[in-house]
Amino acid sequence: MFGTKDHLRAEGGDLTIDGVDVVDLADVFGTPLYVTSERRLRENARAYRKAFPEAEIYFAVKANGNLAILRILAEEGLGADVFSAGELNLVRMAGMAMDKILFNGNSKSLEELEMAVEAKVRVSADSRDELLNLSEVASEMGEVAEVAFRVNPDVSAMTHPKIATGLKTSKFGIPWQEIVEVYRTAMGLEGVKPIGLHCHIGSQILDVAPFVDAAAKMMELAGEIVDIGGEIEMMDFGGGLGIAYAPETRAPTPDELAAGILPVFLEGCKRLGISPQMVLEPGRSIVADSTLFVTGVNVVKRAHVNFVGVDGGFNLLARPMLYDAYHHAVVANKMDQEAVGKYTVVGPICESGDVLARDRDLPEVERGDVLAILDAGAYGFSMASVYNGQPRCPEVLVNGGRAELIRRGEDESAFLAGQIVPARLLR
Amino acid sequence: MFGTKDHLRAEGGDLTIDGVDVVDLADVFGTPLYVTSERRLRENARAYRKAFPEAEIYFAVKANGNLAILRILAEEGLGADVFSAGELNLVRMAGMAMDKILFNGNSKSLEELEMAVEAKVRVSADSRDELLNLSEVASEMGEVAEVAFRVNPDVSAMTHPKIATGLKTSKFGIPWQEIVEVYRTAMGLEGVKPIGLHCHIGSQILDVAPFVDAAAKMMELAGEIVDIGGEIEMMDFGGGLGIAYAPETRAPTPDELAAGILPVFLEGCKRLGISPQMVLEPGRSIVADSTLFVTGVNVVKRAHVNFVGVDGGFNLLARPMLYDAYHHAVVANKMDQEAVGKYTVVGPICESGDVLARDRDLPEVERGDVLAILDAGAYGFSMASVYNGQPRCPEVLVNGGRAELIRRGEDESAFLAGQIVPARLLR
Repeated sequence: MFGTKDHLRAEGGDLTIDGVDVVDLADVFGTPLYVTSERRLRENARAYRKAFPEAEIYFAVKANGNLAILRILAEEGLGADVFSAGELNLVRMAGMAMDKILFNGNSKSLEELEMAVEAKVRVSADSRDELLNLSEVASEMGEVAEVAFRVNPDVSAMTHPKIATGLKTSKFGIPWQEIVEVYRTAMGLEGVKPIGLHCHIGSQILDVAPFVDAAAKMMELAGEIVDIGGEIEMMDFGGGLGIAYAPETRAPTPDELAAGILPVFLEGCKRLGISPQMVLEPGRSIVADSTLFVTGVNVVKRAHVNFVGVDGGFNLLARPMLYDAYHHAVVANKMDQEAVGKYTVVGPICESGDVLARDRDLPEVERGDVLAILDAGAYGFSMASVYNGQPRCPEVLVNGGRAELIRRGEDESAFLAGQIVPARLLR
Repeated sequence: MFGTKDHLRAEGGDLTIDGVDVVDLADVFGTPLYVTSERRLRENARAYRKAFPEAEIYFAVKANGNLAILRILAEEGLGADVFSAGELNLVRMAGMAMDKILFNGNSKSLEELEMAVEAKVRVSADSRDELLNLSEVASEMGEVAEVAFRVNPDVSAMTHPKIATGLKTSKFGIPWQEIVEVYRTAMGLEGVKPIGLHCHIGSQILDVAPFVDAAAKMMELAGEIVDIGGEIEMMDFGGGLGIAYAPETRAPTPDELAAGILPVFLEGCKRLGISPQMVLEPGRSIVADSTLFVTGVNVVKRAHVNFVGVDGGFNLLARPMLYDAYHHAVVANKMDQEAVGKYTVVGPICESGDVLARDRDLPEVERGDVLAILDAGAYGFSMASVYNGQPRCPEVLVNGGRAELIRRGEDESAFLAGQIVPARLLR
């Protein structure tokens, strides 16, 4: 029923996740609610470790910043790709090893560079100016920062324009034509030690070919750097592997990605006589399908189309609004009922774009039903806001037939946090 | 230099807001930062009160949920359009009168309806099902709830599809063809007292004509309701008046809106022999141009285009990413310098779409410069998230040459709030 997602089943009319009834979870924890399968999360991490036994796997923290989830990934041996001081703090709290962290980012403040140097994590420099900033900061601290260079390979990843990051028009990376010159500059600068190259061509990519193209270009650039006497200790090919959001979609597995890029990497290394650490930065393909977004039905409206008004909106799951993304939706308490017609599932936010699922075949939907939105573990809670007076919901972890609360939901105090009304206005 | 925005000036090379130097504010409070002119906010509120002296003006809280700002609007005599329990709590805290509140929303929970009935605020019912829910809740509480009906007038507002709310394909409102039947149903139900009609055709509308069309349709429907013996005590024409984000744009004033819709309303009332309360629900046109988003330059990259990397991203100002919206940008510490070329201003978020301003003529930009993004008071902070480990920034209110902190910025603890790591994972 759910393809390869064997953590999800229909049992006795209800949806279960690793044997735990989703309708019961909605009863106990309320809706809206995020629910993660620990088993699936670990399986996804292990699939990468198995496909790339010699590589380091750096989880892209932006996809999911839950501490319990990060802790599980640390247990599975993963490091992290962080993009800010905030994310660096998170992975420290999760107990990730500092030698498995890459501090990434296209616009880092001097304070963030300082923090990275102090934590002794590697930095990915996004521009010549940033390299100079890092050299300045590290020299003043009397340190030498290991720096990789984010390359813009100008490779088309055939994904949504808002998340295609490897085109020359994107804000990310150093144009590949300039990378050798920047590397040469770094080799002569104080406070920095250039250690390799880094790229990331986009997100939700469903074809291995662009990864292979990018890897080939990266190995070519590594050769040019070797030619000028540069050392290559690390080659980071980024993340971006997509997942199958729609039942009819097919996404490459980590094994298939490995079959595509490992030969390019290994042959390149052999040819150049180098043996750098390979790094990958998956986010979505580790965490997305481990998690359900569970939301309760407030109201059904029969109008131009049949609208199902639920209690979770785009403040909690922004992908459908932001990227016109498809998420599969099921009625968790009516898994044994036939579809009776098309419904459009809409959230409670005051914007027309607050649509979670459009024109779906569902059983008869009524107030009190529980909808489960699949594959919500990546860019779900991590993008949540309290827009329109909607507090952020709890997160639950399912493991061995039990459910544990891993983030408390907010209440109205969330809207008041930090607010100060000047006394003169309180007359 | 800033058209009608006379709270903004260039003085001694710096941008000032009501006489307060924006560069000084960036020094004192740090960047990123929201800065609001109290004077401008009051002027905008008064422009509506003057244009519609007999109407109630309900501020659309979703545009800006800052308590000090809501308090100022309450002082100016405004009520509020709220969309959730959270927003109802906010306006209570701000001291708004409960008889000037409309509880709006397309997907209200039973708990929210209960809360609305208990607070004795009027409710706008979005569907027949919701009317029945309200009747059920209020009857059980032994109360009678005043209810208006959100009409979907099927009027095109020529705005961005994500914020056009008055088309039949939108999730909002009861199809206009069904409104009389729903009203008739309400007249026979316990626990509810139907009091009138409500519409809202969209957002950022720059032409008065669709408002006039909608008002005409609403008065026609009011007539049909009078014909069946229904009473009309309230006619709410919603909000949606746009503002001039780009210097070359011209937005209608509240006076011009009044010139368009007041005659339709007054003649309709006269014809029907009714004297309902007129209500309007502006949000953006009250608060947008009162506020700057101030952000510091981390890095400048010369690549395919010239990128200015700043410290505030789409987690704090989502409109450019969400709606491809234009916000005017100036270099606040170089107001006396000529433009030297095109720059694209990008935030620190790990998505290609994190672009605040594209291809703008700016003076030579360097690290440490301060950029001010104009017209950020509506759907700015209210949509903010902590995505990618970026804490939410402070808000400051400028009044009489002084600046007061009205919301403290968050720190790293923002990412940890509510998180629980099961002990078994902390081995």
